[in-house]
Amino acid sequence: MRAVDIIQKKRDGGALSPDEIAFFIDGYTAGRVADYQASALAMAVFFRGMTPEETVALTQSMMRTGEVLDLSALPGPKVDKHSTGGVGDKTSLVLAPLAASCGVFVPMISGRGLGHTGGTLDKLESIPGFRVGLSLDEFRDVLRRTGMGLIGQTPQIAPADRKLYALRDVTATVESRPLIAASIMSKKMAEGIDALVLDVKTGDGAFMKTLDDSRALARAMVDIGRGMGKNIAALITDMDQPLGNAVGNSLEVAECVEALSGRGPADLVELSVELAAWMVHLGHGEPLEAARARIVEALASGEGLRKFREVIALQGGDPAVVEDPGRLPRARRTVDIAAESGGFVTHIACAAVGHAAMVLGAGRETVDSAIDPAVGLVLHGKVGDGVKKGEPLVTLHVNDEARLAEATALIRSAVHVGPKAPPRTRLVREVIQ
Amino acid sequence: MRAVDIIQKKRDGGALSPDEIAFFIDGYTAGRVADYQASALAMAVFFRGMTPEETVALTQSMMRTGEVLDLSALPGPKVDKHSTGGVGDKTSLVLAPLAASCGVFVPMISGRGLGHTGGTLDKLESIPGFRVGLSLDEFRDVLRRTGMGLIGQTPQIAPADRKLYALRDVTATVESRPLIAASIMSKKMAEGIDALVLDVKTGDGAFMKTLDDSRALARAMVDIGRGMGKNIAALITDMDQPLGNAVGNSLEVAECVEALSGRGPADLVELSVELAAWMVHLGHGEPLEAARARIVEALASGEGLRKFREVIALQGGDPAVVEDPGRLPRARRTVDIAAESGGFVTHIACAAVGHAAMVLGAGRETVDSAIDPAVGLVLHGKVGDGVKKGEPLVTLHVNDEARLAEATALIRSAVHVGPKAPPRTRLVREVIQ
Repeated sequence: MRAVDIIQKKRDGGALSPDEIAFFIDGYTAGRVADYQASALAMAVFFRGMTPEETVALTQSMMRTGEVLDLSALPGPKVDKHSTGGVGDKTSLVLAPLAASCGVFVPMISGRGLGHTGGTLDKLESIPGFRVGLSLDEFRDVLRRTGMGLIGQTPQIAPADRKLYALRDVTATVESRPLIAASIMSKKMAEGIDALVLDVKTGDGAFMKTLDDSRALARAMVDIGRGMGKNIAALITDMDQPLGNAVGNSLEVAECVEALSGRGPADLVELSVELAAWMVHLGHGEPLEAARARIVEALASGEGLRKFREVIALQGGDPAVVEDPGRLPRARRTVDIAAESGGFVTHIACAAVGHAAMVLGAGRETVDSAIDPAVGLVLHGKVGDGVKKGEPLVTLHVNDEARLAEATALIRSAVHVGPKAPPRTRLVREVIQ
Repeated sequence: MRAVDIIQKKRDGGALSPDEIAFFIDGYTAGRVADYQASALAMAVFFRGMTPEETVALTQSMMRTGEVLDLSALPGPKVDKHSTGGVGDKTSLVLAPLAASCGVFVPMISGRGLGHTGGTLDKLESIPGFRVGLSLDEFRDVLRRTGMGLIGQTPQIAPADRKLYALRDVTATVESRPLIAASIMSKKMAEGIDALVLDVKTGDGAFMKTLDDSRALARAMVDIGRGMGKNIAALITDMDQPLGNAVGNSLEVAECVEALSGRGPADLVELSVELAAWMVHLGHGEPLEAARARIVEALASGEGLRKFREVIALQGGDPAVVEDPGRLPRARRTVDIAAESGGFVTHIACAAVGHAAMVLGAGRETVDSAIDPAVGLVLHGKVGDGVKKGEPLVTLHVNDEARLAEATALIRSAVHVGPKAPPRTRLVREVIQ
């Protein structure tokens, strides 16, 4: 077998066999297949696509270049959630404790955010002392003791994906659906899970801007999961405005504590409950209605909040942030942006809000950028909410005064107020199974 | 400017500016743009193509990474011919002396053959002592003294093309028309010529198998030449059977001497005269008829043969091979393959004949293969010729007995004899200007 023949076969529209894909991926990981061959194949895949069978084979090959967790000793279903990411997307910190409270084990391995705002790891690291860098043995131990664990990608998980993603990033081959789907799934499937719930965002603040694109990506990932024998479902959810009110790492952790305390923003609570209900439904096999009722009960009883406190403590963080979010990092000052007219919020340009938070220091402009855990912004009204002239629309949390003007201008142009309330849109657009 | 943005623009169907192309090619040559980015761009070009303007810019950028010969001191037009290559294609050695006899300067810089049979350089090197590795200064001197010169690619000529071609070869990005056209033209245009005649082969033994593909490649190259202000024409010529009778390096040199002596095979003589006539026509601007008459006269008078003898001597070769081809390397033995029935030659599978010659040692299987200058084969009949049962159809010239069986089998399956003579096909299919 030769790498050049495999590239040519894909270039000419052929479907690669599992053996050909494994030859290429194993060879690339080991350095026998050159990076210039991998980038040429990635570009050929961009144009020719991959069949569902090829995408499963690619996922499996990438997964097998690294460690696949064996969690079979844990007495219950192992279920994770993956989100394609958006602005203010913090559901992991709410749904994982809720699902764990209902007896599913949640082994969540996350990446860092690039662009917009921080990823789950960045949010967790805003909790003083919280360690996302547990070894896989420590991770298994935390999981066993509390039913959930939250760590970062390790070099042991799907190293082929890490290497290939870095290459795709500099060769304009990121935007290929089978490559995106296989990249996500190779890492998730390495977690040793039985079931997976996907939150595929759609809209202005999402990676996939249109419903069609989101649906196709969801379908590709669901097909991979099914092809690998897992229970899997994808919820396509709205990202035309930020989720919840807070954007920025410690601000979002505080909002999650509020949500687990029964006082969270309606959209964040609704979506977290729905995703957690699907996790329990797929994990335990009980009806979705029943699963949803159990999750609502775990929220109302405070069991979810206790679980969050427990995992923070087990992973070295300060559990008192749960009672006193004031222990989280706080920005030096806040700046209110007031409404220039009264009426209703008609539109919030989601990507621009994410960009404003990044400008303040909450996200990364490049891989090497440092994140400021304290900064960000809080929206005082979401689309459809009434506002009065002169009252705060948005509060910025600022450490670097030099960034203030740009962030303010971005927010001014992003939040639109008009005389009539627009129709409410549904948060969960559709479910793909 | 960033390489990744240029790749993405082409990937998404955009036309690259001359500045973007120069940035990429200069960067690639200097090592600032990575080979994995160059291969990704090449694959994007494979799928998206290039406009004529982009192809001109690519040719110029590649040409300018190296030396461009200044031949302005030579007192006459500088004209070259380039062939896309085929089996038994040896016209360079006949037409260059003829054209030089008519007052055009022919600065021919050739590559080595890969596959099939040797290239022009390999043929020349079968002449004892002949030096194809002249420095550019020596080359200019030979040109000035005799009106022609025949050397190999030097690292000074279009280094970007050399680097890019090696990359394309291992990334399945060879078969892209704009990349092929720019590769050829960047090297030819570096010769400092005023005019160029292209011999674009078509058929089973050619790189382009169909008339449509040959025509499109011819058009792309003619557009580049015109875009760079040169007089240029492409003849699309038959490669459905070998050209001439001899295939193999010293055998082909001997056949060229025969042709220049007025005793060559009809097709070789016809095509060499026609191409040389076009060179004189484009170089001097005189009508094609008049140019053709002068070339025929140069052949009949023996002036072409004298010119060939002269250039052999100036480039260090043994000029006596012109009077005595027996001084060329000869194989240890010859083996006749006899006709199994009488009738007419109806078809000669051209690529298979080339393959047979390669098996005997006349061509390269890989870049590193050594060529045996003495071996090859001679056809005793071309398509349409009558043959008698038991008489030799083909004579193999053999040094390595271990290769004999495979070569014999290839020839047996390649040469077809039937009861009726097929219609003759035209050698020059069309002319593109």
